[in-house]
Amino acid sequence: MAEAETPNRSPEIRKDKIHNRWVLFSPARSRRPSDFKAKSNPQPNNQTECPFCAGHEHECAPEIFRVPADSTNDWKIRVIQNLYPAVSRELDFQNPVSLVGDVAVSGFGFHDVVIESPVHSVNLSDLSPAQVGEVLLACKKRIEQLRSCDSIKYVQVFKNHGASAGASMSHSHSQMIALPIVPPTVSARLDSMMEYYKQTGKCSLCDIQPNELLIAESDHFISLVPFAATFAFEIWIIPRDHSSHFHEIDSEKLSANST
Amino acid sequence: MAEAETPNRSPEIRKDKIHNRWVLFSPARSRRPSDFKAKSNPQPNNQTECPFCAGHEHECAPEIFRVPADSTNDWKIRVIQNLYPAVSRELDFQNPVSLVGDVAVSGFGFHDVVIESPVHSVNLSDLSPAQVGEVLLACKKRIEQLRSCDSIKYVQVFKNHGASAGASMSHSHSQMIALPIVPPTVSARLDSMMEYYKQTGKCSLCDIQPNELLIAESDHFISLVPFAATFAFEIWIIPRDHSSHFHEIDSEKLSANST
Repeated sequence: MAEAETPNRSPEIRKDKIHNRWVLFSPARSRRPSDFKAKSNPQPNNQTECPFCAGHEHECAPEIFRVPADSTNDWKIRVIQNLYPAVSRELDFQNPVSLVGDVAVSGFGFHDVVIESPVHSVNLSDLSPAQVGEVLLACKKRIEQLRSCDSIKYVQVFKNHGASAGASMSHSHSQMIALPIVPPTVSARLDSMMEYYKQTGKCSLCDIQPNELLIAESDHFISLVPFAATFAFEIWIIPRDHSSHFHEIDSEKLSANST
Repeated sequence: MAEAETPNRSPEIRKDKIHNRWVLFSPARSRRPSDFKAKSNPQPNNQTECPFCAGHEHECAPEIFRVPADSTNDWKIRVIQNLYPAVSRELDFQNPVSLVGDVAVSGFGFHDVVIESPVHSVNLSDLSPAQVGEVLLACKKRIEQLRSCDSIKYVQVFKNHGASAGASMSHSHSQMIALPIVPPTVSARLDSMMEYYKQTGKCSLCDIQPNELLIAESDHFISLVPFAATFAFEIWIIPRDHSSHFHEIDSEKLSANST
């Protein structure tokens, strides 16, 4: 009975005309299951029930690719569709032009999952630097596929670690969302960086002086707490050489620096 | 020993030059006590230990005013300074001009508390419409005092209900923060509303068609779920007659409509 009442509408992107921003509505997200028992007491379930584990591939949404490409049961990484996507790759793209009134366009986009290990109990932090490099290379490869779609304007890679961070599955994974719009917070940051460049002739990220806020450094990256952090434990990883896109990163640098 | 290591620095407002925004840092906030035992199991403590209860006024930061003004032990509402303020009224105001580099200005501002009832167990929703009207009038009066300070550019009234919403004290209260800057989200909304006005000649809030999203209406206000809500259970209360400032509201309307 309750099942019959579950909302089954397609995702849509609604215009908030007061704030002049777009808000993503995704009824399907509320249907996704969780293997965390409770947010206040996150006890990952037994791996025999986990669809992200090796041997359970048939319980997942379609696979996009795996690493190594020619592996069978011995895969190391799988990139798959999200079974409960926030946006839908099956909808037609509608250009979200600015109109007066209550406007909504289809929630077109791609929402993928990167399973970072075939083993349930292995976290990203348990992997070797070379293995973490392979995960990042899988993200890079998928971004390059997504950006070949003309309607896609922005791709975000993110990882929720633990139930209180928003994760619903305890098996180590990242997610990727590709959208037909650039989110306002991102375009505001790009505008701000362009303004800084016009004023100083420099990139504001390259211009950061880590000083006492430095956490670690390697040949190609530095990691630090930003001077005006907005969250506790906020950390930025910045390439030493100016680089504007994650997917343009050198594969060798990625593997060598994932420490 | 741990006490001696507690940070005791003044609040400051730091410039995030990457995002071109200001971030408030307030070390004192982490020292504030809570009478909620745990976030996952909010059990308000006994009222004998609550500084917001009648008879415990001496345990609070200085009072700004009370309602009725000439009351003694029989007060109904008290507006007091926050003992653990996010901003400090004792700091000098520094104009946060845009500069290159890591810039921080003093965390000048006012952070007040409105104790909505002398009785520990009474929630705002337990009050009569006339009593809720008196709480809103107390907010209006304090806003009018704060805006007479030339350096204050923005006042926000907010209420955290329950520990998981961020409240540290279970006794019913609201808070008010007065800042020397207009937060970027607020100026972005004002810019957006101005743009809508230029395009249509109308106020975008007055132009809202509640339709099926209407929750309640009275002579002077409507309450509704916004078309592009960004949170579950988000509700807006909008005056029927165009009004640009909360503190300009008619006292009679407030008391008549706090249902």
